[in-house]
This record gives sequence, C-alpha cells and structure tokens, in this order.
Amino acid sequence: MFDQISIIGCGLIGSSIFKRLKKTGSTKKIITFDNNKSVNEIIEKDKLSDEIFNSAGEAVKNSDLIIIATPISSFENVLSSIKGNLKAGSILTDTCSVKTGVSKTFEKMNLKNSICIPGHPVAGIENSGPKAGFAELFEGKWTILTPNKKINEKEIKKVSNFWESMGSKVKIMSDEDHDKILTFTSHLPHVVAYNIVKTSMSNDEKVKGDIIKYSAGGLRDFTRIAASDPIMWRDIFIDNSALIIQAIDKFIKNLDEFKKAISDKDSKKLIEIFEKSKDFRKSVIKAGQDTDQPDFGRK
Amino acid sequence: MFDQISIIGCGLIGSSIFKRLKKTGSTKKIITFDNNKSVNEIIEKDKLSDEIFNSAGEAVKNSDLIIIATPISSFENVLSSIKGNLKAGSILTDTCSVKTGVSKTFEKMNLKNSICIPGHPVAGIENSGPKAGFAELFEGKWTILTPNKKINEKEIKKVSNFWESMGSKVKIMSDEDHDKILTFTSHLPHVVAYNIVKTSMSNDEKVKGDIIKYSAGGLRDFTRIAASDPIMWRDIFIDNSALIIQAIDKFIKNLDEFKKAISDKDSKKLIEIFEKSKDFRKSVIKAGQDTDQPDFGRK
Repeated sequence: MFDQISIIGCGLIGSSIFKRLKKTGSTKKIITFDNNKSVNEIIEKDKLSDEIFNSAGEAVKNSDLIIIATPISSFENVLSSIKGNLKAGSILTDTCSVKTGVSKTFEKMNLKNSICIPGHPVAGIENSGPKAGFAELFEGKWTILTPNKKINEKEIKKVSNFWESMGSKVKIMSDEDHDKILTFTSHLPHVVAYNIVKTSMSNDEKVKGDIIKYSAGGLRDFTRIAASDPIMWRDIFIDNSALIIQAIDKFIKNLDEFKKAISDKDSKKLIEIFEKSKDFRKSVIKAGQDTDQPDFGRK
Repeated sequence: MFDQISIIGCGLIGSSIFKRLKKTGSTKKIITFDNNKSVNEIIEKDKLSDEIFNSAGEAVKNSDLIIIATPISSFENVLSSIKGNLKAGSILTDTCSVKTGVSKTFEKMNLKNSICIPGHPVAGIENSGPKAGFAELFEGKWTILTPNKKINEKEIKKVSNFWESMGSKVKIMSDEDHDKILTFTSHLPHVVAYNIVKTSMSNDEKVKGDIIKYSAGGLRDFTRIAASDPIMWRDIFIDNSALIIQAIDKFIKNLDEFKKAISDKDSKKLIEIFEKSKDFRKSVIKAGQDTDQPDFGRK
C-alpha cells in the first residue's frame, strides 16, 4: 500500500478516510490539511492524523498518495498550491461528485510529477463535517474511478486497491459516463428534493406549520435528502449545470404529461406509470441498492 | 369501547386494525369483509377475524363501529351496499387519504341510522396488502378526523378513543384543511417520486442499468415512495386532482426559478435555497416527525 498518505480537506469524506486508515493501520503516516481551524482541533484532540499542516503545499511533500477531498470550488486552488511540492511518482486522486470538470482541471494543471486518477466514493449521507465521518462510511458502497486512457493500469490498480481497503466496491468508467449517471441517481433527485421543500415552504405560516407536523406522509424523506451540505451541492449544481438542466427539462416534460393524466382522470395512464415505478423499484432491490423492508412509514 | 366492529376492506390499513384489535382484545367481535378471496384465506388461516362475510351488507349488521378501509374508488359502492343494514346509532368511519370527497359522499348517501365521522390514519408504508399489515402500524402516527360541524362531540370522542387504542395520536380538523395539508405532505411528494423514477427510466437501456446500479446516491429513496399501492394512488390523484394540479403548477414555477439559478451559476441564490431547506428539515425533526440519524446513505 502507500507509506504516506495526505488528505486535503477533512469533512465527511476526508475524515472517514483517515478514521478508516487509523483503524486498519494500513499506512505508516497520515498527513492532513484543512483550512478550518475548528476542524483541525477535532482531528488533533482525537489523534486522527500523524501530522497536521497549515498549508496544502506543505502537507503533500513526500506523500505517495494525495487525496483531495475538498468542495469542487476549491479543487483548482488546492492543485495550484500543491503543484510544486509533489513527490515524483506520487498518485493524486480526489473525491469530487462531478468528474469531467476535475479531469479538465487535472489536464490544465499539467502535473508532471504525479499520476492523476480522479475518483468519487458514492457514499454521501445527509450529515457533513469531520464529526459525521466514520471508518465504515464506504463499506459496501461504490467508488467510481475515471482515469483517462493514458494512465497505466498498474497505477489504477493501486488506487482501486486503496478504495477496496476502505470497504468500497470499485468501478472504472469514463468521466462523461460518470456525470451522466450521477445526474440521474443523485443530482436530479437533490434538485427535486430541494424544490419540493421550497414549494411546501411557500405556503402561509399556518399551513406550513401543519405541513411540518404531518410531514411523515412522504415529505420528510425529501427533507432528509435536502439537508445535505450546501457548499457541496452548490458546487455540484454549478459544475454539472449543463447535464442537470437537460435532466430538469426532461423531468418537467414528464411532469406536464403526468399532470395531464391527473387532470384527465386517466386511470389507465396513471396505473401504467405506477406499475412501471414498482418494476424499477424491484430492479433497485435486485441490484442490492436497497432492501424491501418498509422504511417510508418509519417512526 | 365498541362491542362489535366491522372492517370493510382488509389491505394494509384494515388488516393492521384487526391485528391490533386481536392483540389487545378490546372488542368482543371482529367482523371482516374483503372482495378478494385470497385475502380472506389469509385472514381465516391466521384466525384474525371472528366472522368473515361474503358481502359488505351482511358484514355490517349489528355492528357498533364500521370502518371502511377500501380504496377511495370503492367507497361509494360500499356505502350503497351497506346502507340498508346499518344498526341504529352505529358509527361509520373510513380511512381514505382524501377527505372532501368522502364527506360529500357521506352527505349524498344520507345515512340516517349512522353517525358518519371521516378519518385518515396517516400511516402508510410502501408495502400493501394484509400480509404487510401489523398491529403496531399506527403507533405514534397521526390519525386525522374530519367530522362535519353537526356531529356530536361525544360521538367524535368515541372514534378518537378508538384510534388512540390503536396507538395513534388524534387530530380533528376540517376536510378542506386535511386535503390542503396532505397535498403537500404526501400527494405532491408521491407525484414527484413517480415522476423522477419515470424520468430516470426514460434513458436508454445501458444508462438505465447503470442508474439502477448506482441508485443509492439519492434516487433509491424516491423509488421507495414510488413503490406504493397503484390503485390507492390512482384514486388519491383523481379524487384530489384540483389541489394536486395547483401544487404541481407551484412546483414547476419554483423549479423554473431553480433551473435559472443553476443556469446563471447564481451561487448566492443556490446557497439561500439550501440553507432554508436545512432549516425546514430542522423543524421536521423538532416536530418529532423524523430523527436526525443519517439514513440517506444507508446500506
């Protein structure tokens, strides 16, 4: 494995990585950097890092693997500050939720000393920050790697092994495929969740209070998704805006048709939509992405 | 309490009621009717009813409380068939998810022998049918009663006590308020969940397969809601169509604004939407409608 690993950005994902590394003891030295003082205090108090640096540039020196786990909007700045200090032959990866932008930035920065292998652990939860992180976060989840075609298979294998040591399943695909899939599995659902909360909130105060009180009928599940980290989601929506807008347009077109079926009281059409949804749900369960135990009506 | 209770319709809700009644032994006689033979076989096998009838009309004779737990589209037919057989002074209630239509039907049928008190246990889960029902389904959940103003408080209290014996919290409100609130807490979330599944499914087969494979990033939670009982939801959408269409229009208007913020890469506007969503989520947790334990990233 890697003798020395630097983690730049110690939020939910970054902290879950070093908590796992500490637990398994699979690396000799863990180095961390975060530009938030209170984050560093938490890390120091719990002895989760072997060395905490005050600059990203200092933090990457001599490291064999560098993981950038910052919001997308900080990614390019981080690369600029570490560029001159990377060890020859080191591997550089990231955990950003959009991959075509990351690939372009890697290319633009032309980091000759390092091998750049973009990655995305699909392991988000609605809580954020280093306190929310835990060693088992990645267990059974997918991590998607999107190296360009010039990258040596041996190097990809090292990163792949690393994520497997985190408990993750690993899949290699192109950055375009990644962004297209994630638009539907994650980005559009978040747009819609935020928007349904926004729509519910636009009622007058009395109704709004009642909506909160009786939100267990379905709405609360949307508030759960919509509680995710604001900075992260702003960055995703901006970085992947073209694909997300296409998906929103598709969604609105379908919603208009759905509205027409409701307005026409078109029983056959409605049942058809619902039955297909049930089939899709069955496929999700079959793919091991969820269980069929009821949870929607949980307490 | 009631000496004899008839349950018409033995799906998730109806079966959860008689399972609870059997468990607590709080009534002398439980009578059931369902027009589905296989449902009656399940009930008979597990000895969950004291008497199973082959017609709704026969099933209500001499009963003190009659609970209609059928889909909305069967409600008027059930009333017609039981109308002549209701015991004087009996109480008639239902469990339908839309209440203004039920009130109108009660009024139209002019059932002189019985006191009609519409009700809605807000306790749905994504599974349906008598096998999915369980005695604890209503525990800690709200049941909303929407009696008209002419109904005696003493009679309302009896139904209220009944639902409390089911483990439920009870709230009395007007049928209009009920439908307005449920439009936002339950009906619109279901429209949106069905529609996001529909939109994801409209991709080509390869992408669709990948979307299923990586659906844990948010989409699976929508598939869970969208797995609910098709007949029930068709009926809700048709019966509450006017309010649901208004809500869809509001939702699309907000989504257009949201889309513009993404397209303009309007960081300030996006963060504002997200922060407000987080506040709303906090209110939902404060109202005891959900916990703040992460679940979105569950295995």
